[in-house]
Amino acid sequence: MSERLLVTFNAGSSTVKIGLFALTEAGPKRVGKGVIDFREPPLRFRLTEGPDTFDIALEAKPGDALDIVLGEAFRRLSWHFDLGSVVAMGHRIVHGGDSFGGPVRVDDAALEALEALVPLAPLHQPQGLGLIRAIRRLRPELPQTASFDTAFHRTHADIVRRFAIPRGMHDQGIRRYGFHGLSYRFIAGELARREPALAGGRVVVAHLGSGASLCGLEAGVSRDSSMGFSALDGIPMATRCGALDPGVLLHLLAEGYDAGRLEDLLYRRSGLLGVSGISADSRELIDSDKPEAREALDLFCFRIAGEVSRLAATLGGLDAIVFTAGIGEHQPPIRRAVVERLKWLGLELDEAANAASAPRISRAGARVAAFVIPTDEEVVIAEDALAVVQTGGRAA
Amino acid sequence: MSERLLVTFNAGSSTVKIGLFALTEAGPKRVGKGVIDFREPPLRFRLTEGPDTFDIALEAKPGDALDIVLGEAFRRLSWHFDLGSVVAMGHRIVHGGDSFGGPVRVDDAALEALEALVPLAPLHQPQGLGLIRAIRRLRPELPQTASFDTAFHRTHADIVRRFAIPRGMHDQGIRRYGFHGLSYRFIAGELARREPALAGGRVVVAHLGSGASLCGLEAGVSRDSSMGFSALDGIPMATRCGALDPGVLLHLLAEGYDAGRLEDLLYRRSGLLGVSGISADSRELIDSDKPEAREALDLFCFRIAGEVSRLAATLGGLDAIVFTAGIGEHQPPIRRAVVERLKWLGLELDEAANAASAPRISRAGARVAAFVIPTDEEVVIAEDALAVVQTGGRAA
Repeated sequence: MSERLLVTFNAGSSTVKIGLFALTEAGPKRVGKGVIDFREPPLRFRLTEGPDTFDIALEAKPGDALDIVLGEAFRRLSWHFDLGSVVAMGHRIVHGGDSFGGPVRVDDAALEALEALVPLAPLHQPQGLGLIRAIRRLRPELPQTASFDTAFHRTHADIVRRFAIPRGMHDQGIRRYGFHGLSYRFIAGELARREPALAGGRVVVAHLGSGASLCGLEAGVSRDSSMGFSALDGIPMATRCGALDPGVLLHLLAEGYDAGRLEDLLYRRSGLLGVSGISADSRELIDSDKPEAREALDLFCFRIAGEVSRLAATLGGLDAIVFTAGIGEHQPPIRRAVVERLKWLGLELDEAANAASAPRISRAGARVAAFVIPTDEEVVIAEDALAVVQTGGRAA
Repeated sequence: MSERLLVTFNAGSSTVKIGLFALTEAGPKRVGKGVIDFREPPLRFRLTEGPDTFDIALEAKPGDALDIVLGEAFRRLSWHFDLGSVVAMGHRIVHGGDSFGGPVRVDDAALEALEALVPLAPLHQPQGLGLIRAIRRLRPELPQTASFDTAFHRTHADIVRRFAIPRGMHDQGIRRYGFHGLSYRFIAGELARREPALAGGRVVVAHLGSGASLCGLEAGVSRDSSMGFSALDGIPMATRCGALDPGVLLHLLAEGYDAGRLEDLLYRRSGLLGVSGISADSRELIDSDKPEAREALDLFCFRIAGEVSRLAATLGGLDAIVFTAGIGEHQPPIRRAVVERLKWLGLELDEAANAASAPRISRAGARVAAFVIPTDEEVVIAEDALAVVQTGGRAA
């Protein structure tokens, strides 16, 4: 008899990460990990963890409907996993608005409510919803669940959620939601397990990937985040601008930019790529000896340090900082530069530990501790999916 | 024989403040202070300090050319001051771009260069330039000088000046300039005089008026400011939004807003007015018992505290904070709420001193000191004007 499985989907702008989890007494346990890569033809499907691994070209074409792509991917997966024993498929959905404070089973009503949120995240919301619709057609009987990047931040106080714009616009949903919530939820749990002394502490988590944000935690509860209404705000990212004077947008509109050109500029041509003119990839910038590369990295770290300090003000102090996600987990020079700029708050780097990306990279006795913790959004999605199908509906 | 005079002009969106200074051995000494109020007909001209005072309706109409308004104002002033002994008229000009690192005598070339900066500050640059042109026609022989709100911030490092946008746009002038520089220059000088122990210190100055910004000083030199490219960025103001997720502007464009409606929204209908729905005047909000008034004030103070903390990161620490301008000098509840949120950095309020708006409002022994220092932009303009006419050209 084969074990029961959960499958998770984490849709990005050009990839879909797939997680396979076995249901065990201790909860979901990862048994496979894959990715469908849409960046260029032919579409590739890689299984990078599991009983077997593969890296194949799919027959489906980049323009094909997701049903066709996923149908082929499921057939390939079924050679290695018993997809008949899947009990639910869970998705990361970027925006849960104010309606969704926790994971849900995606029925018709939920899907409609999530479609209605597309205008709040037009570049990120459609991917996850597209997967859900395709899987509904392929496996209509299978329960699907949604976990939201915004839900973890619903604990923010009113002043944290508010922009200084007319209150009617706030009431209509133009407010600071915060994102990367699945990652922050995982880190909060992991930190509590690893560092029980920090259980009640004030911690800033730096989720530094190609999308990047920071979250201020108090006793594991989110109190503030660098990202606001959209995935543009806060610290600079690979190609996104981060915080930007609204007067710059007014100026560019006066210079003849339209909305489409502004969106392209701020989402795809800014950030590390825009400042360096070289690359959106911080590893390439670290390896470059051009001054433009140095400037882009300096700006990135300067802005992170400033935002950590702002979040510390929300928290009323700072006991620790956690680095996570691609850059946070794997790039010691970035971590070093950030910690260096935060010496004034009591951070002190253990150089050797940082170079080794050790779990704790602050010196013993430093007033503020620094950690590196790998994040795992998929395990959060799997846990949510299990909770939702077990309770049969909406979880807390 | 009458003493020689300097006249200063500080043009706002609906008023022009006029300062009259006698040249003394110790420098310019204020002998009169007035304001022309354009808010509603009839135009009023008040002289609030001097050998005489008055509050009169001008015959000029709101739509009349500035030559006519100023001509009438000069005639009224000439009954009380010998305007024949004026040696120069000095102006506050909002934007000096990168060309003007210090005050200048406004000749044809300078006026042309300042006109070219109008697109960088379309709502604030024209007022001062309009005054200069009108006075050129009325008193063509009289030297006029310009002092810039941006000049004091030219000491910012490259990463402080930079947005995370394509570097070509930075090179074309889309960068963080910072404003309120005349006020910060005055405060830096006054603080050095009053508190010599802080001469090398790291100080954040909070210029809180209907326009509001913060400046981080290191040994009296500006290192960072909350205002960036435009007068919109940073902390919320009476009717301006302060920092705002650029995604909000993209969203509003998608909803059908055009540039003009966005400008009106963010400059005139946001800030304290927008959040409270009651008033742009923090005194009215302090006196109100409505929750919306409380929310607007809470947001204002929360955002100030966050920005002080961010600036402290730029400075690498914080030794003192200075409150100035209308709200900063005269509204104890605002100062108290900001200091309360900055306890974590070592600020401690002396309640009685704060209630009295005393020069020092922090408790003896507090790790970070807090001061109230009235600002005086006009005396800086007068000193600049004197320096420029004495050296005959551009000052440092």
